Amino acid sequence: MKIMHTADWHIGKKLNGFDLLEDQRAVFDELKALAEQEHVDAIMLAGDVYDRALPSEEAVTLVDQMLFELNREMGLPLLVISGNHDSGVRLRTGREWFQSTGLYLNTRLEEAFSPVTLGDTQFFLLPFFQPVDARLYFKDETLTNIQKAIEPVVAKMQTLFDPTKRHVLIAHFFVAGSEHSDSETLVNVGGLDAVPVAALAPFDYVALGHLHNKDAVRAEKIQYAGSLLKFSVSEAHQEKGVFILDTDTMARRFVPLAPLHELQTLTGPFANFLHATPGEYDRDAYTAITLTDTAVIPNVMAQLREVFPRVLTLARANGIEGEVVSETTSVKISPMAMLDKFFEQVTGEKLTPEQAEWAKQALAHTKGAE
Amino acid sequence: MKIMHTADWHIGKKLNGFDLLEDQRAVFDELKALAEQEHVDAIMLAGDVYDRALPSEEAVTLVDQMLFELNREMGLPLLVISGNHDSGVRLRTGREWFQSTGLYLNTRLEEAFSPVTLGDTQFFLLPFFQPVDARLYFKDETLTNIQKAIEPVVAKMQTLFDPTKRHVLIAHFFVAGSEHSDSETLVNVGGLDAVPVAALAPFDYVALGHLHNKDAVRAEKIQYAGSLLKFSVSEAHQEKGVFILDTDTMARRFVPLAPLHELQTLTGPFANFLHATPGEYDRDAYTAITLTDTAVIPNVMAQLREVFPRVLTLARANGIEGEVVSETTSVKISPMAMLDKFFEQVTGEKLTPEQAEWAKQALAHTKGAE
Repeated sequence: MKIMHTADWHIGKKLNGFDLLEDQRAVFDELKALAEQEHVDAIMLAGDVYDRALPSEEAVTLVDQMLFELNREMGLPLLVISGNHDSGVRLRTGREWFQSTGLYLNTRLEEAFSPVTLGDTQFFLLPFFQPVDARLYFKDETLTNIQKAIEPVVAKMQTLFDPTKRHVLIAHFFVAGSEHSDSETLVNVGGLDAVPVAALAPFDYVALGHLHNKDAVRAEKIQYAGSLLKFSVSEAHQEKGVFILDTDTMARRFVPLAPLHELQTLTGPFANFLHATPGEYDRDAYTAITLTDTAVIPNVMAQLREVFPRVLTLARANGIEGEVVSETTSVKISPMAMLDKFFEQVTGEKLTPEQAEWAKQALAHTKGAE
Repeated sequence: MKIMHTADWHIGKKLNGFDLLEDQRAVFDELKALAEQEHVDAIMLAGDVYDRALPSEEAVTLVDQMLFELNREMGLPLLVISGNHDSGVRLRTGREWFQSTGLYLNTRLEEAFSPVTLGDTQFFLLPFFQPVDARLYFKDETLTNIQKAIEPVVAKMQTLFDPTKRHVLIAHFFVAGSEHSDSETLVNVGGLDAVPVAALAPFDYVALGHLHNKDAVRAEKIQYAGSLLKFSVSEAHQEKGVFILDTDTMARRFVPLAPLHELQTLTGPFANFLHATPGEYDRDAYTAITLTDTAVIPNVMAQLREVFPRVLTLARANGIEGEVVSETTSVKISPMAMLDKFFEQVTGEKLTPEQAEWAKQALAHTKGAE
């Protein structure tokens, strides 16, 4: 069988204020065309279908339409799990009806132990879950992090293995050794909240979602699909697309998909951009610009937007007095550090120890909703 | 056939801060038991499934479960439309899969022209719609209100009538002649935004939702189901339940359903309530209390809550200086008048003409979301 592996659609995501719905619809059309052309037998979607737990009506309409086209119009079995960005409860609306046409959608840990068999392969659909879900399910208080929690999960799946079949895991978490980019949140990425590669050894293929860089983990049988689009300036040089898995050989190959609008980073003097000849730059791209000028440039953003209507960020290679140096911060810092910095920028004061403690607790509390 | 007619579930509604989910689950269980006992052939749900366009995860979970139990577990065909409280977009998630098991759910005007035939009857499922939807659909700019818009809707349905069948309309709007209660918004109720009884004459039965009083309209073939629960003090004396329609005779009968907690209004001196003997009052009921005392009573609400934990409102038959006269306003005034009054209470000043105009426009703008 030929199985497509995709993940991290993040439908409804905005990129520095730009609505990506049109881009998301366009790349989906490419994915669909590829599925037809390759005659794939099923599609695995490894979580983060939506960008937010509470998606807009436009995002809901688009996802509903996408699932309809793949599953009902094209008749493709879909193997879908919820990611950390999804509300499992909202995503699973209609789940009990979906299965009748081969749309398999898991959002609860316990559902991962009812594998779906298609042809020569058993698929285990493990949605994003928290250690507390495993503690409750296995009645084991020692499962305090994902590294520990994954062990009984995989062990239980192994008891369900049909030895005559291939065994594929679809999951949404951080696997140890992965690199990450800006558009994932740093909270809980790394350390004890990562799943070690070794824990996934029993599977013939692990179809992952969560990290947006398809090359985030280099392992023989473990693959991140990566996101369909570049969701951050730090992803500018990543190739985006989907994988096609052959269950006969368990070999996979990457197929790139071209975006409606590219995402690029440009560095140079202001004059170069302003007086660019047609065709010199991709003017339609989402563009992060770094100016090398040292002089103050009046109304710089408005002038740049004349050339690049999708300017994402504007930075200076050399800081200039009296001018906004960067319109958007895109450096890798933790949410707490970011809050700290933001508070100081806005109030001119540091967080008091009490405020910092309160913020820390609030962040910890919202972690699950990220 | 025996068809159950219900409406206005308003799942997720809070009553003066009290969460009604448990009450809603309980009355649904009664509805289910009745459907089994009566061997009904299908259920019509005439809109306002949810109380809010953006329901909570708890409300989503409950509705999903209810539809699952009726349609998948009991195998009952369901005929559902969206009401003015529902987000059609969110409610219709999964719609394309629902139909395979006889769950018919319409949220768009154009869908009303694909009738559902069950046995001897054609059902026309007309969701709540705005005049603008009809203007776009019929390409007719003169359809400026519901009274005008309903005419081409009914005319088009008549062209689809199978003369060998009964014709039932399921709809969610205000029919002229109806009375209304507090828990519907007054905006757009009455006048040109009402559908005249005569416009519905072609149907053998009109299964309505919108008004919570089942007796709101007295017409031979037109019936409001009423809400399943009392959602307002003004509904305290209404009987709640469902209708059972017999499509052989087109006769209908009302079957009352008992709530988990009653809703009652009590009037009398404070001492009577405080020193009530066990069993003298229904202490579990949602209770609106009017005290006839003239003296100031310290800490009156806290004392009453000891006896009636579900006090909704507290009013005085005679206004007392230095005491809150009513904790909740429940008089019939328009949203604009209410805003005007609220502004004056809070600021001590009247709205300026500019403020009033701004508020008027804002209210007009949100009308559709009510």
